[in-house]
Amino acid sequence: MTTPYARLQARFSRLAALGEAGAVLGWDASAMMPRGGGAARGEQLAALAGLSHEMLTAPEVADDLAQAQAEEGWEEANLALMRRAHLRATALPTALVEATALANSACEKVWREAKAASDFARVQPFLAEVLRLQRETAHALAAATGLSPYDALMDGFQRGVTAAEVEPVFDAYALWLRDALPRAEEIQARRGEPVPLDGPFPVEAQRAMCRRLSLRLGLEADHSRLDESLHPFCGGTPTDVRITTFYSSDDPAKALLGVLHETGHALYERGLPPAFARQPVGEAAGMAAHESQSLIVEMQACRSDAFLRFLAGEMTAAYGARPAHDPANLARLWRRVARGFIRVDADEMTYPAHVILRFRLERAMIEGRLEVADLPTAWAEGLRGLLGIAPPDDARGCLQDIHWHDGAFGYFPSYTLGAMAAAQLMKAARAAVPGMDDALGQGDMAPLLGWLRANVHAHGARLGFQDLLRAATGKGLDPADFTAHLGHRYLDAP
Amino acid sequence: MTTPYARLQARFSRLAALGEAGAVLGWDASAMMPRGGGAARGEQLAALAGLSHEMLTAPEVADDLAQAQAEEGWEEANLALMRRAHLRATALPTALVEATALANSACEKVWREAKAASDFARVQPFLAEVLRLQRETAHALAAATGLSPYDALMDGFQRGVTAAEVEPVFDAYALWLRDALPRAEEIQARRGEPVPLDGPFPVEAQRAMCRRLSLRLGLEADHSRLDESLHPFCGGTPTDVRITTFYSSDDPAKALLGVLHETGHALYERGLPPAFARQPVGEAAGMAAHESQSLIVEMQACRSDAFLRFLAGEMTAAYGARPAHDPANLARLWRRVARGFIRVDADEMTYPAHVILRFRLERAMIEGRLEVADLPTAWAEGLRGLLGIAPPDDARGCLQDIHWHDGAFGYFPSYTLGAMAAAQLMKAARAAVPGMDDALGQGDMAPLLGWLRANVHAHGARLGFQDLLRAATGKGLDPADFTAHLGHRYLDAP
Repeated sequence: MTTPYARLQARFSRLAALGEAGAVLGWDASAMMPRGGGAARGEQLAALAGLSHEMLTAPEVADDLAQAQAEEGWEEANLALMRRAHLRATALPTALVEATALANSACEKVWREAKAASDFARVQPFLAEVLRLQRETAHALAAATGLSPYDALMDGFQRGVTAAEVEPVFDAYALWLRDALPRAEEIQARRGEPVPLDGPFPVEAQRAMCRRLSLRLGLEADHSRLDESLHPFCGGTPTDVRITTFYSSDDPAKALLGVLHETGHALYERGLPPAFARQPVGEAAGMAAHESQSLIVEMQACRSDAFLRFLAGEMTAAYGARPAHDPANLARLWRRVARGFIRVDADEMTYPAHVILRFRLERAMIEGRLEVADLPTAWAEGLRGLLGIAPPDDARGCLQDIHWHDGAFGYFPSYTLGAMAAAQLMKAARAAVPGMDDALGQGDMAPLLGWLRANVHAHGARLGFQDLLRAATGKGLDPADFTAHLGHRYLDAP
Repeated sequence: MTTPYARLQARFSRLAALGEAGAVLGWDASAMMPRGGGAARGEQLAALAGLSHEMLTAPEVADDLAQAQAEEGWEEANLALMRRAHLRATALPTALVEATALANSACEKVWREAKAASDFARVQPFLAEVLRLQRETAHALAAATGLSPYDALMDGFQRGVTAAEVEPVFDAYALWLRDALPRAEEIQARRGEPVPLDGPFPVEAQRAMCRRLSLRLGLEADHSRLDESLHPFCGGTPTDVRITTFYSSDDPAKALLGVLHETGHALYERGLPPAFARQPVGEAAGMAAHESQSLIVEMQACRSDAFLRFLAGEMTAAYGARPAHDPANLARLWRRVARGFIRVDADEMTYPAHVILRFRLERAMIEGRLEVADLPTAWAEGLRGLLGIAPPDDARGCLQDIHWHDGAFGYFPSYTLGAMAAAQLMKAARAAVPGMDDALGQGDMAPLLGWLRANVHAHGARLGFQDLLRAATGKGLDPADFTAHLGHRYLDAP
């Protein structure tokens, strides 16, 4: 009675519902759960993950996938994504999946201590084991997909982007930065030091302001929450997005700009096509696409001259009239370039250098050209080549990020591909939507959001990263739009 | 390599982990979820319920259950509970389970409107359909278990208690009440009106006091939360219990006593045997047993003369010195009998009358001796017989409770069985633990809790309700301990 495609739809819908359950439990673990619930939460999530894997790799799935017929367009794309998910899930032997989960978890625990003590030697054998299993995983995925091993890993985070495409883009950026960064620093020095923000900044006032702005940008109160966690993120499900942030009472900017960033992620989830909810094609297009949506909101829209005029009024309303709230001063505060050691603290111009460094190193590690023992040295050399500085210790070097220590190889490029895509999308949106900056000056993101919903969100995962950009902007990824944006913001102005 | 019993253990452990996931999602839906997440949450919970049912009824479970051998004692009890769960799950045809879920959900929605409008006719056909399916369910369960249809439903909430045991206990109570209630009212009138509590009662102060007391009673901060929801409950999982309450700024007693009640439930969950976590035998012994633990804390311990002396000090610390905070006055306020229409507002003496009414009516409905159309009349007659009053409308009559309208038949007796068991356990604890009331007078529940942990909590579900009482008190349910407690509190004193 049911067709193979209908059976697959039902199965993937259930899989997605389990995924949603896991997402809410994950949010809860970070934002709500008392510490003593941790062990049980691990078992709950493991049960959900195990069941999902069994549902995805059950023998009848292969049969249905072989026989399924789908209509051209959305259904066809959906079926292709189902095949891809099944292929990736069945490519890995259960023993490898289990060994990886154990090794990642063990390494992640030791990494926390190693980072606190800035002691790379402590985590080195654990990271070596993680890498060994990641290489094995990469080769198994490569054999199944026909991609190169590193591409096969990257493909798990952002479908359809290859190192061969990324490498020249990143190399060109590194070259551009070598010239642009000193110029930006010089211009910045000429402009003089900004007036620092002047408190107090009561957490209650910060919380209210963050929530108010998040809603003003277009998030609906009935479909979202804003809570607190040590590491800010956007989680939950498309009809119930959960943003978290971390408030510091001496600096309101971190939470504020962080919430604007997470709101961009949240708006993407809210804009996914409801007709394909809980189907692979109804999901976001990947991590680079997701990052393009957080960064177009945070970096492109909210740090624009227009929006900073609006934010100046909001800062004054929340914390009183202060000289630091002058829009030009906010621009000097919140658009400041600086060569630093820490990726998550980097400005938008130097951030890609941190990503390029990691892309080069993780690719070399997966391809067997770099061993874990040589990582600290390679890190220092690489950063010196990109930013002219070397980390004073490993805590501020190769121990700073959780990613590799938790088995995530191939993720880093998404950050910078997203930043580049954000600039490209913003340029296209500005050309297509008249009066967008006037609206941003009033704190009104509706014109931009309308364009993003129609040209990005509504596509779900129907198009890959490059095709999504082509559909929205008329061309594949063009890093020139990003450097033009940076040039305008950091090099052109007086 | 694995034994049938070990395979069953692994399966039930995974089932329990899914159940825990559902419990956290259920808590979230009541305490955290924005309204717009409701539809998706329904699908997430349905996916978990569907998968759990499939896991419990899979063909290999029957094979393993047939072959499994368990050691005498805990393992044997565990295996028996697995057999029982499997028997009840396989007794019902899928079509009946699905029809029941749909009918319950439809009726529950209409019931909310019908209750608001006090319009029984509106919900009558929906409730009739719910009842029809409950009768079918009861007969299917009866055929599988050998119990009578109504007993088979009751067994789903509190294992091993039959209507034949409950009926004489309830009839005797109704008889006792006919004489005792007017006497209690007379004594109460002679004592004079209590001084009412005098605010303001800021919600923040109430919240802090409720949490402080909950922790003081023995709940651990690392394993619990206190939040807010429209209908208070205790949810979550044994290592992460989640209490909710509802604060009213003009009456702090409702939240306070409610949190003490839910703390009793929470302490039971916290005290379950960790060695059998996520196994049927490691769960609570049933709804009546659970209610005995909330009521021994709320009614027996916290409304005792000794604890009210402690609470008087807490009220003064939180809201300032007031005449109403005199312990004797708090006793007159919080131990007040009143013939009312609403079960959830009832005092501990008249509460059983509300339960007895529902027990008689629901049993008659399941046994085909009462039809839904005749429910309002039967309700009025029944309440008149028990308390001498009849509800002025159906909103304050047969529309007041959600239970039947959501398909829960056989649940109500647990409330009063729990109240009776609480009195019986308290008497045994007082006899076994010297100085218990002195400790309660200092706000110290540790002596009582220690006894409950050893004599109730630590048994998990190894013993049924009656055997649990026998092990803890040397006898099966003895309602005389309950009437003795009520007599002492409401009839003896000057």
